[in-house]
Amino acid sequence: MGFRVAVAGASGYAGGEVLRLLAAHPELDVVTVTGHSSVGRTVGEVQPHLASSADLVFQDTTTEVLAGHDVVFLALPHGQSGAIAAQLPDDVLVIDAGADHRLTSEADWHAFYPGEWHGAWTYGVPELPTADGRLRTALAATKRIAAPGCNASAVSLALAPAVAAGLVEQDDLVAVLAVGPSGAGRSSSPALSASELLGSANAYQIGGVHRHVPEILQNLALVTGVRGTVSFTPVLVPMARGILATCTARLAPDADERRIRAVYEEAYGDERFVRLLPAGRFPAVEHTIGANTLLLGLAVDAAANRLVVVAALDNLVKGTAGAAIQSANLALGLPEAAGLPLDGTAP
Amino acid sequence: MGFRVAVAGASGYAGGEVLRLLAAHPELDVVTVTGHSSVGRTVGEVQPHLASSADLVFQDTTTEVLAGHDVVFLALPHGQSGAIAAQLPDDVLVIDAGADHRLTSEADWHAFYPGEWHGAWTYGVPELPTADGRLRTALAATKRIAAPGCNASAVSLALAPAVAAGLVEQDDLVAVLAVGPSGAGRSSSPALSASELLGSANAYQIGGVHRHVPEILQNLALVTGVRGTVSFTPVLVPMARGILATCTARLAPDADERRIRAVYEEAYGDERFVRLLPAGRFPAVEHTIGANTLLLGLAVDAAANRLVVVAALDNLVKGTAGAAIQSANLALGLPEAAGLPLDGTAP
Amino acid sequence: MGFRVAVAGASGYAGGEVLRLLAAHPELDVVTVTGHSSVGRTVGEVQPHLASSADLVFQDTTTEVLAGHDVVFLALPHGQSGAIAAQLPDDVLVIDAGADHRLTSEADWHAFYPGEWHGAWTYGVPELPTADGRLRTALAATKRIAAPGCNASAVSLALAPAVAAGLVEQDDLVAVLAVGPSGAGRSSSPALSASELLGSANAYQIGGVHRHVPEILQNLALVTGVRGTVSFTPVLVPMARGILATCTARLAPDADERRIRAVYEEAYGDERFVRLLPAGRFPAVEHTIGANTLLLGLAVDAAANRLVVVAALDNLVKGTAGAAIQSANLALGLPEAAGLPLDGTAP
Amino acid sequence: MGFRVAVAGASGYAGGEVLRLLAAHPELDVVTVTGHSSVGRTVGEVQPHLASSADLVFQDTTTEVLAGHDVVFLALPHGQSGAIAAQLPDDVLVIDAGADHRLTSEADWHAFYPGEWHGAWTYGVPELPTADGRLRTALAATKRIAAPGCNASAVSLALAPAVAAGLVEQDDLVAVLAVGPSGAGRSSSPALSASELLGSANAYQIGGVHRHVPEILQNLALVTGVRGTVSFTPVLVPMARGILATCTARLAPDADERRIRAVYEEAYGDERFVRLLPAGRFPAVEHTIGANTLLLGLAVDAAANRLVVVAALDNLVKGTAGAAIQSANLALGLPEAAGLPLDGTAP
Repeated sequence: MGFRVAVAGASGYAGGEVLRLLAAHPELDVVTVTGHSSVGRTVGEVQPHLASSADLVFQDTTTEVLAGHDVVFLALPHGQSGAIAAQLPDDVLVIDAGADHRLTSEADWHAFYPGEWHGAWTYGVPELPTADGRLRTALAATKRIAAPGCNASAVSLALAPAVAAGLVEQDDLVAVLAVGPSGAGRSSSPALSASELLGSANAYQIGGVHRHVPEILQNLALVTGVRGTVSFTPVLVPMARGILATCTARLAPDADERRIRAVYEEAYGDERFVRLLPAGRFPAVEHTIGANTLLLGLAVDAAANRLVVVAALDNLVKGTAGAAIQSANLALGLPEAAGLPLDGTAP
Repeated sequence: MGFRVAVAGASGYAGGEVLRLLAAHPELDVVTVTGHSSVGRTVGEVQPHLASSADLVFQDTTTEVLAGHDVVFLALPHGQSGAIAAQLPDDVLVIDAGADHRLTSEADWHAFYPGEWHGAWTYGVPELPTADGRLRTALAATKRIAAPGCNASAVSLALAPAVAAGLVEQDDLVAVLAVGPSGAGRSSSPALSASELLGSANAYQIGGVHRHVPEILQNLALVTGVRGTVSFTPVLVPMARGILATCTARLAPDADERRIRAVYEEAYGDERFVRLLPAGRFPAVEHTIGANTLLLGLAVDAAANRLVVVAALDNLVKGTAGAAIQSANLALGLPEAAGLPLDGTAP
Repeated sequence: MGFRVAVAGASGYAGGEVLRLLAAHPELDVVTVTGHSSVGRTVGEVQPHLASSADLVFQDTTTEVLAGHDVVFLALPHGQSGAIAAQLPDDVLVIDAGADHRLTSEADWHAFYPGEWHGAWTYGVPELPTADGRLRTALAATKRIAAPGCNASAVSLALAPAVAAGLVEQDDLVAVLAVGPSGAGRSSSPALSASELLGSANAYQIGGVHRHVPEILQNLALVTGVRGTVSFTPVLVPMARGILATCTARLAPDADERRIRAVYEEAYGDERFVRLLPAGRFPAVEHTIGANTLLLGLAVDAAANRLVVVAALDNLVKGTAGAAIQSANLALGLPEAAGLPLDGTAP
Repeated sequence: MGFRVAVAGASGYAGGEVLRLLAAHPELDVVTVTGHSSVGRTVGEVQPHLASSADLVFQDTTTEVLAGHDVVFLALPHGQSGAIAAQLPDDVLVIDAGADHRLTSEADWHAFYPGEWHGAWTYGVPELPTADGRLRTALAATKRIAAPGCNASAVSLALAPAVAAGLVEQDDLVAVLAVGPSGAGRSSSPALSASELLGSANAYQIGGVHRHVPEILQNLALVTGVRGTVSFTPVLVPMARGILATCTARLAPDADERRIRAVYEEAYGDERFVRLLPAGRFPAVEHTIGANTLLLGLAVDAAANRLVVVAALDNLVKGTAGAAIQSANLALGLPEAAGLPLDGTAP
C-alpha cells in the first residue's frame, strides 16, 4: 500500500507530467486530481496521452478536496498555491511546482512577482552543492518543497561547481537558453502559437527581467555565500520541450580546464541524474526528453577567457515534475530515484 | 541589357539563393550556372523551387566556363574558390560567398582553416561602421568581394556601434546564436538529419573554435582599431533558415541605455537593411525570412551590468546571398538595394 | 500612377500576405489598411516583417474608410465581408479572400456556414478548366472576385483534368492534406499552440464536415457539369505554411498513365503558376513557399486501380493572397502574373 | 534472474528503442549489443540518451556473438537478418525488427525487395483479429517473430475490424500517412536532412510501390481470407517520430456508424494497447509518443459514402520496438504488457 497522492492542476503540462511519471512510481498512488475548467471531466478527456490515469475525474481545487492525502503536488498558475498551501495540515507533504515558494527574499519576490509573498520552502534541487552540503539533506527533513524553475535549475547546476570553487567570476555570468514553449504552460497566446514559432526563434524577457534571474542568484549565493550577477536571456525555439542552456563565465586567474573538470566531477560524479559528459562531448536536448536527467558538457575558451558550460534537460521532467518527485522521494524516505526515468526518448 | 552573370556552385543552398534573388534583379542576368555532381542537369531538376531559372543547365566549375561574364558569384565549398578566382580576369567582378577571402590575417587563417591562405578581399557588409567609414565606400571601388559569414555579420553588426563608441568592454563580449541547419550547406550528415534535429537543440564548435570567431574579431578591430575577444557559441535549432543572435557585452562605466540607443540610431538610422527596433521590441527570425534585413533590439541589464543586443537575420539572404548581391550592386554602381527584398515571409 | 488599393483585415495572415506581395507589384499601391484591434497602430508594429509598409496606420474596417479606392481586398473573418461588400460602389474592384462569396448554392452555404448567404462572386482560380473554358475569362470581366479556399483550390486543380476527361470516377475521390496552421489565421487556440503541434500531427473536421468540401464539389461540377463526391481530410502538421495534398481517384476503365498525363499537360502546359512535374517526380511544400505556384506530380497505381495526384502550394500565396492578386490582375486588365513570385524559398 | 537478451543493430533507431524499453522491463536483461561501425564503442557514446545501458560495448554482429542468449532482437538493415537468423539455435527466441521475415508470399517478396526470400515468421501484431483468432495465440507458440512494419501495422489495425465485418469494400481502401523521418532509420540522406524537411512535407514511394503495401494486403487477407487492394501514400512531415494514418474505405451497402463502431469496440474493447476513442474524438501523434499504443478515431462520411479511420502511433514503439517486445512477452509466457509504457509523452 503506497502513499495517497493528490495532484492539483493536473490539467496543465506540469501536472500532467507529474501524472505521467507517477504512473510508473512504485510507492506513490494518485487518487485525486483537481483542475479548474476541467472539473467533472476525466483525465482521459483532458490529457488523452495519459491512458494510465484516464478514469480519474477532475475535482475542484480546494483545501477540502486536497486534505486527507499523504502527498499533495501543486501544479497551479503562479500566485495560486500560496493560499491553498497555507490551509493544508503540517504533516502532509506538499510540493509546489509553481513559483510561489521559491524565493527566500521578500524583496526579490516583490521585484519580480505580483501579489503577496508566501515565504520560501525547501528548494527541490537535491544535487545543488551548497556551502552547507547538498540540498538533499534538507529535503529529507521537510514537509514543504518548492520545485525549481526549469531554467533556474539548469543554469544553477551548470555553474555551481565552478563558482563554488572560485574558478570563475561570480559577477560575470552569462546564460542564453534555447527553450521550448511548453515551459509557458498550456496557455494559448499569439506569441506561443504554432504559426508564429514554427520556422522562427525569438528572445523574450530580455535585460534581466525574467523571474528566474533572482532564483539563479539565490541558488548561487547558497553555494558561495555571496550574491553575484547573471545576464540571462531565454530564446524560444521550435521544439515542444527542452532547454539547451549555454552558460559562460569569466575565468578566475588560476583556472584551467583540468581543474574545472575536476570540480565538476567532484560535484556530480556520484549523481545519477546530473552528469558531466567527457571532454569534447556536449549534450543535445533529445538526449533528455522524457528523462529526469541534466546533462552537462564544458569547454574552456582561453582566448576569450571564459568557461562555457552547455546544459540540456527536459523542462517538464528534471526541470519541474521529475525534480518534484525526486524531492518528494527524499522527503518520504524512499529511494531518491524511485519512479524516475533515466533514459531519454530520442530521436 | 543587364550584366551577364555566372553563379558557380548554384546547386547548393547559397548558390540557389543567389539565383532566387537575382531572378528579381533588374540589371543582373544569370546566364551560366555551374555545379559538380549536377553537371548536365537543369536547375529545375536540382533546385525544383527555382522555376524562373529552371532551364539553365549546370556546367562544370572551371575558369573557362566562368570567364566571359561581367559578374561571377562563387558559392563553392570552403577552400575551392581561391584557385578558381586567381585565374579570372581582373576586370570581372567576383564575389566569393565562401570563406576563402575573408580573413586579412594569415595567422588567423591557418589557426582556423586547412589549406592555403588566398589573401583577403573587400568584406561584403556595406553597413559596417569602421574607423575609416562604412565599408560601402570600399565596396564601390573593388572588383573582388568576400561575402561575410552569416554568424559573423550578425554579431559584428549587433555589437559594432557599442564597441565603436566605447560604451561596452571589447574584451568581454559573449554571443550565443540559435541557428538553422541550412547554414551548413546542402550536405547531409547524421548530425544534420531531420530525425536528430526535430525536437532537439545542440551547441557545436564550443569554446572558441568556430571559424567565425576570427572574422568577428577582425570586423570589430576594423571598427575600433584594436582587437578584443568574443565568446561565441552557435546552437543548432529546428528551423531551416535563420539566426537569432543574443549578443551581450559588459557595460563601460559611463554607459546607459539612452546613450547606447543613440549610437545605434546614429549608426543605422539611415540604413535600409539594418534596423534597430524601438525600445521594448525585439526581432524574431520569421520577420527576416527571405528578406535582406538584419533586425536589432537592445536592452540594458543594469543589475548584470551588461548590454544585450538581439539580432535576427536570414542566414541565406542578409547572411550570405543578399549581402553578396548588395555588395555587387555597390561595385557595379547600381542602386545598393536593387533586387533585394525588404519584407520577410511570416508566418 | 497605379491603382489605389485598400486592404481590409491587413493585421491577419492573409491580409499581411496581400501586403507582402503588393509591395513588389508594379501597378497596385496600397494606400489604406484596416484592422480591428489594431486600429491606430502601424503595420510595422503589428506585422513586423512588412518593412515596406511599416508606416501605414490601421484604420477601422468601415465602408467609409474603404470607399474611394480602385481596388479593395477583404481579408476578414468569415461572415464579415458580406455586409461591408454590399455597400461598396459597383465600379470598385472587390476581392474577398474570405469564404463569404464562394458558394453558388444557398443550400451548401447553410449546410456548412452560419449566418446569411451573400451570393457567389466570380471564383478566383484562373486556371480552372471549366466546361465553359478557363475561369480567367470570367475574371477578366468582373468587379467581384471570391478568392478560393486554399485546400479547395489545391484539390480542385489536382483532380480537374482527370475528371474533365472522364479518366477517373468522379464519385470516388479521396483527398488527404497535410496542412500548416497558418491556414487557420492568426487566432490563438490550444489546438494551434506550438506546444501541441510541435512533434505531432492530427486530423480535424473529419468525415465530410470541412467547409472546403462543397467548394471542391462545386468546382468539379463546373468542370464536368455533374456533382460528384469527395472524401476530404485535412491533417495538421508542424510547418507554418503550406499544403501537401494527396488526391486519389478510382480509374475509369480505359484510363492509363499516358492518357492521364496527356490531359494534365493539355490542361496546364501553358500555365505559369500551375505546373505538372515530369514522370517520377513529385513536389515538396518547400518548393512553393512564398511563391504563387501549385506544383503537381502524378502516378497511376494499377494494382489499386487509382490515380494519385500530389499537389503542393503555399496556402497563403497561391492558396489565398496570390490567387487574389492574380485574379485582380485579370480584372484590371494587367498582366496576369504582375507582382507574383514564381520561385519558392527553399530550404 | 531474467532472460538473457542480445540486441543486434542496437546502434540504430529501432535497436536503440528496444534498449530504451527493455531498461524498464522486469524480466528481460540486455547483456549483449552488436553493431557495425560502432563496434568497440559504448552505448553511451553512440546512443547518448540511453544512460541505463551506457556501459555496454558494441560487439560485431555475428552468430557467435549472438548465440548463447535466451532472446535475440534483430534490428538490422533489411536483407541482413535472414542469414544471421538461419544460424541461431531453434530454441532461442528471435525477433526480427526488420522486413526479412514478414512476407508469406515469395512473389510479393521479389516484387518489392531485392535479394533472397527467407520465408515468413509469425507476425508480431498480437491484436490483429484474423479469421483464425488473434495473432497473439500464434505468437505464444513460436520462437521466430517478425515485428511489423510501422505503417503496415497502423493501417492494418485501423481497417481490420471493418473489412472483417464486411462493412467496407476491401478493394477500395485508401491510406495516406503523415510520417516522421525516424522510420527511415539512422541513415543520413539529402531528402532526410533537417534543412529539407523543416517547413516542408513531401510524399514518397507513390503509386503502390511502397514495401508496406503487400504487408497490409497480407494482413487484411489474414482477416477476411481474400486479398483486396489498397492505395497507400506516405507523406514525410517535420516530426521526428510518429505516424498519423488517415484510412478511408468505401462503405458496404448496409454499413452505418453505429454498426461500424460496434465492430471496432468488439475488436479492441479488451485491448490494452489498441484503443478506439469515443465518437467525435480523434487521436494526435503526441498522445502516443514513447508509448506502446495505437489510438483510433472513426467517422462515417455518408455523403462521400466512406468510412474514415484515423490512427496514431509512435513508429518506433508500437510500430516497431514495442510490438517486438509485446510479441516476445507472449512467446516467453510473460504478461503481454510487461515493460511496455501505456502513457505518451505530450506535449
